[in-house]
Amino acid sequence: MYKVDLNCDIGESFGQYTLGHDEEIMKHISSANIACGFHAGDPSTMNKTVKLALENGVSIGAHPGLPDLQGFGRRVMAISPREAYELVLYQVGALNAFVTAKGGKLRHVKPHGALYNMAAVDEKLAEAIAEAVYQLDHEIILYGLAGSELIKAGEKIGLHTANEVFADRTYQNDGTLTSRQNPNALITNVDAAIFQVVRMVKEKRVSSVEGIDFSIRADTICIHGDGPNALDFAKKINEAFAKENISILAR
Amino acid sequence: MYKVDLNCDIGESFGQYTLGHDEEIMKHISSANIACGFHAGDPSTMNKTVKLALENGVSIGAHPGLPDLQGFGRRVMAISPREAYELVLYQVGALNAFVTAKGGKLRHVKPHGALYNMAAVDEKLAEAIAEAVYQLDHEIILYGLAGSELIKAGEKIGLHTANEVFADRTYQNDGTLTSRQNPNALITNVDAAIFQVVRMVKEKRVSSVEGIDFSIRADTICIHGDGPNALDFAKKINEAFAKENISILAR
Amino acid sequence: MYKVDLNCDIGESFGQYTLGHDEEIMKHISSANIACGFHAGDPSTMNKTVKLALENGVSIGAHPGLPDLQGFGRRVMAISPREAYELVLYQVGALNAFVTAKGGKLRHVKPHGALYNMAAVDEKLAEAIAEAVYQLDHEIILYGLAGSELIKAGEKIGLHTANEVFADRTYQNDGTLTSRQNPNALITNVDAAIFQVVRMVKEKRVSSVEGIDFSIRADTICIHGDGPNALDFAKKINEAFAKENISILAR
Amino acid sequence: MYKVDLNCDIGESFGQYTLGHDEEIMKHISSANIACGFHAGDPSTMNKTVKLALENGVSIGAHPGLPDLQGFGRRVMAISPREAYELVLYQVGALNAFVTAKGGKLRHVKPHGALYNMAAVDEKLAEAIAEAVYQLDHEIILYGLAGSELIKAGEKIGLHTANEVFADRTYQNDGTLTSRQNPNALITNVDAAIFQVVRMVKEKRVSSVEGIDFSIRADTICIHGDGPNALDFAKKINEAFAKENISILAR
Repeated sequence: MYKVDLNCDIGESFGQYTLGHDEEIMKHISSANIACGFHAGDPSTMNKTVKLALENGVSIGAHPGLPDLQGFGRRVMAISPREAYELVLYQVGALNAFVTAKGGKLRHVKPHGALYNMAAVDEKLAEAIAEAVYQLDHEIILYGLAGSELIKAGEKIGLHTANEVFADRTYQNDGTLTSRQNPNALITNVDAAIFQVVRMVKEKRVSSVEGIDFSIRADTICIHGDGPNALDFAKKINEAFAKENISILAR
Repeated sequence: MYKVDLNCDIGESFGQYTLGHDEEIMKHISSANIACGFHAGDPSTMNKTVKLALENGVSIGAHPGLPDLQGFGRRVMAISPREAYELVLYQVGALNAFVTAKGGKLRHVKPHGALYNMAAVDEKLAEAIAEAVYQLDHEIILYGLAGSELIKAGEKIGLHTANEVFADRTYQNDGTLTSRQNPNALITNVDAAIFQVVRMVKEKRVSSVEGIDFSIRADTICIHGDGPNALDFAKKINEAFAKENISILAR
Repeated sequence: MYKVDLNCDIGESFGQYTLGHDEEIMKHISSANIACGFHAGDPSTMNKTVKLALENGVSIGAHPGLPDLQGFGRRVMAISPREAYELVLYQVGALNAFVTAKGGKLRHVKPHGALYNMAAVDEKLAEAIAEAVYQLDHEIILYGLAGSELIKAGEKIGLHTANEVFADRTYQNDGTLTSRQNPNALITNVDAAIFQVVRMVKEKRVSSVEGIDFSIRADTICIHGDGPNALDFAKKINEAFAKENISILAR
Repeated sequence: MYKVDLNCDIGESFGQYTLGHDEEIMKHISSANIACGFHAGDPSTMNKTVKLALENGVSIGAHPGLPDLQGFGRRVMAISPREAYELVLYQVGALNAFVTAKGGKLRHVKPHGALYNMAAVDEKLAEAIAEAVYQLDHEIILYGLAGSELIKAGEKIGLHTANEVFADRTYQNDGTLTSRQNPNALITNVDAAIFQVVRMVKEKRVSSVEGIDFSIRADTICIHGDGPNALDFAKKINEAFAKENISILAR
C-alpha cells in the first residue's frame, strides 16, 4: 500500500475575478495551497477558501508569492533573502489568521511561481524562507521542488518537508523541471502524465526528457487547478491511484 | 497612585519613505500601534518595528487600516461589515506573524483612521471588527474611542477593551471628537493638552468645546508620532505624569 | 430614421484574470469604455483592447474608476474634487497614450462605478471631472447619466456630452436609476428591456417603477458586457434596432 | 562657451510621504524627470510637480519605472519587451495628461532605476521602450546612459536622444557605471565630482576607477535630489559651471 499527498493551488481569485474551479477541485485533493494576496487572492477570497477547505477536510497550506498581481507572481524579481523572509512571514501570517479564526490549523507552506523557482536553486533565499516558516511555527511542513535547495533549507533548520513532484511537467537530467520556455515542458497526454506520477510514487523513479532514468522522492504531487481540463485530470488521477493502491493523504 | 497606557501609531514608513520618529518615540510610550501594510507600513517596516518595540519593552498592537495607501487610510470607504472583518483579520494576522517569529505576544488591536472613526459609530462594522479580533485570540485587547460602538462591540463579544482618549483633540458634548474639519479640533497649546489629559486620568472628566463637563473613561491615551513636535510632546507628557503620580503602563 | 450610440464597458480583465467577452461584444457596439488600471484593466489589457477597438471600428473612450481593484471601483470612497480631477486626468492620459500610439483618437470619457454615481449627484465632483477632461482635450465627449450633474458640468465647461440611458435598469420618478439594493433595480426580461430602450430612443420617454411617465434624452445606451447573457442581449438589441429603423452610431 | 542639461528625479513623494526637496532643487536644474506612479509619485504629486516645473521654467520629462512601490523601482523584474513597451506608454501618457492640462509640453522620457539599468544593456527592452516613446510623440527626447543600448535604440527609431552622465558615480573601463554594490561606486567628495563632470562637459573625457581615460558624450548630467546634501551639491555645480562658462540649458 502506497500513499501520497495531492496538492493544488487554490483561492487564486481576486475581487470580481474568478480563477479556477475551487469548489470542485477541493473534492479531489488532500492539500490546498491558498494564495495570500500578493500574487493572487484577497482577504475575501482567503476567508471563503479557508472555509471551503475545512468543509472538505482538505489540509490547509499558505501559498505566498511575489508582490506582483499583474504578473501573477511569475515574473522573477531581485528580492534579497531578508525581503523573502519578510514577505513570507507577512503572507503566511495573514492566511494563518483566517485558519485560526475558523478553528483550523495551518499545516504547510508552499511558495508560489517565481518565488518557488528561485527558492529551488538559491540557497540563501531558501534559508530565509525556511527561517520565516520555522519561526512562525516549527510544525508547519515546508513544500518545495523534490531535492531542491528549499527542501534542504527546511531540513537543515528542523522543519518537516514535502518533496514535490509534478504529474504534467517533464524533467531534466539534473532533476530540475524543463523550463516552460521549452516546447516539451508539459506532458499534455493524460495517460503519460499519470504513468509518470504513478511510477514516481511506486518506484521512486522518473525519466528525463533525454531518457535518463533517475531516482526521485515524491511526498506530494502538484496538480494544476486552472487549466480547462484541470477537473477532469484531478478525477483521472484519483481513479488511477485507486486502481494502483495509492492512498491520497495529506502529510 | 494612578496609571494609564500611552499609545502611539508607529511603523508608518513605507519602502523608501520614512514617517515619524519611531526610535525616539518608542522610549516614551507603553503601547505601539503598528501599521500592517494597507494604509501604511510594509513587511520590512513591520519586521523592523516589531523588533524595535520588543527592544524597548513596549506592548505591541496591530493597527489595521483601509486599503488606501495614497490616502493613508483616512478616506472613508463604503466597505461592508464582512469586508471589515476580513481586512482586519488579514492585517492583524500578518503583524502577528512578525511578533510570533520574534518571540513576542500581540497585545492589542486598534483600527486606524477612517476605519477607527467608522467603527466608533457603526454598530455592525464595530461588531465585525470585534469578531475578527476575538476569533483570532480572545486575549487581545480592543482599543477604541472611549464609549464608542467599537468599545461596546468588544465588551459584548467578550474582549478586554481600552477606552481611548486624546490629549490634543477637543470633545463635543456627546463625547465624540470635534471633526478635523473644524478649526478648534486640535488643542495646540501643550499645557492645555496636558491639563486635559491629566484631568481625564485623575478625575475621569473632560470639558467639551462648549464648556459642558462630562465623565469619560481614559484607559489609554493616544499621542501622535508624526507631527513636528511629537517627540517634544511625548517627553512633556511623561514629565507631567511623573509629577502627577500617574504611571505609564500598558494594559 | 433614428440613431443612437451603443456603449459597453470593455477591457476589464487584469493580468491572468479574464472578464467579459470583449472580442464578441466589440462586434455589436459603437463605443467602448476601456478600463484604465484603477478599478480594472492593466497596461497589457489596455494595449490589447485599444487594438481590438480600432480593428472593429469602435469609437474609443476612457473609463476611469476609483483606485480600488479589489472592490472593482464599486465602493464609494470619500475623495475630494481635486483628487477626482487628478485620478481622471491620470487614467485618461494613460489610455490616451495607447490610442495615440496606435494612430487612433480618444473620443469620450465615462467614469466607472461609484465614481459615475457620485459624479451624477455631486456638483463639485462633477465639475472637477469635467475640468480634467476639458483641459486634456476640448473635443472629448463626456458621458454621464442622462440629466445628471455630470452632464450639466460638462455642458457648463463647454464639452460635448452624451446623456446615457440603461436598457436593463429601472428608473425612479426623479430620473435616477433604482438602486441595485432594491429587488426591482434590474429589468431581467429581455423584451421588456428592449421595449424600454426603443421607446427612450424614439419617443424620448420612459416609465418609472411607479408608472410615472417622463421625458428622457438618450444619446447613448449602456449595455453590460460581463453577464452570462451579455452577448445574447447585445445581438438582440442590434436586431430590434434594425427593425425599428434605429442606426447604431458613435456620437 | 559650453552648454549642458542638468536633470534631476523629481516628484517622488507619495500620498502622506515626502521625498526630496523639490521646490528648492527646481531652482537649480534645467530638466525634471517626474515620477509617474509606479515606483513613486501619485496623481496628486504629479499634478503638483508639473505645476512646480512650469512655474520654474524647468523642462518636463516623464520618469517611468517598474511597478514596485515598495522597492522604489530598484529591484530588477523579469519583464518582457512587450511589458516594458506597455508600462512606459501607460506612465508617460499619464504624466503627459497633467502637462497638457496645464498648457505645457512633455519634452523627454527617462526610465527609472532598474528599468534604466536594464534598458542600458538589453537591446530588445531598449527598443521596446524607444518604440513606446516614438509612437506617442516623435519629438520626445529619450534620455539614457551615455552610449548605452537605450541611446542606440532611440537613435535607430528616429528619436532625439540625450546621453546622460553622472557627476557622483564612478565609471568602469567599458563606460558602464560602477555597481552600487561596490564600495567605490560613489564619488563622495564634492570637488572630485565637480571636477569629473566639468571635464566630461568640456573635454568629453572621463577616467575609469582603474585610471583608464576614455571619451564620453555628456548631453545631460544627472544629479540626485534626495540625499542629505542634494541641494548643496546642486548649488555648487551651478557655481562651478558659471565659473567654467558652462550654460545649464534643457536640450
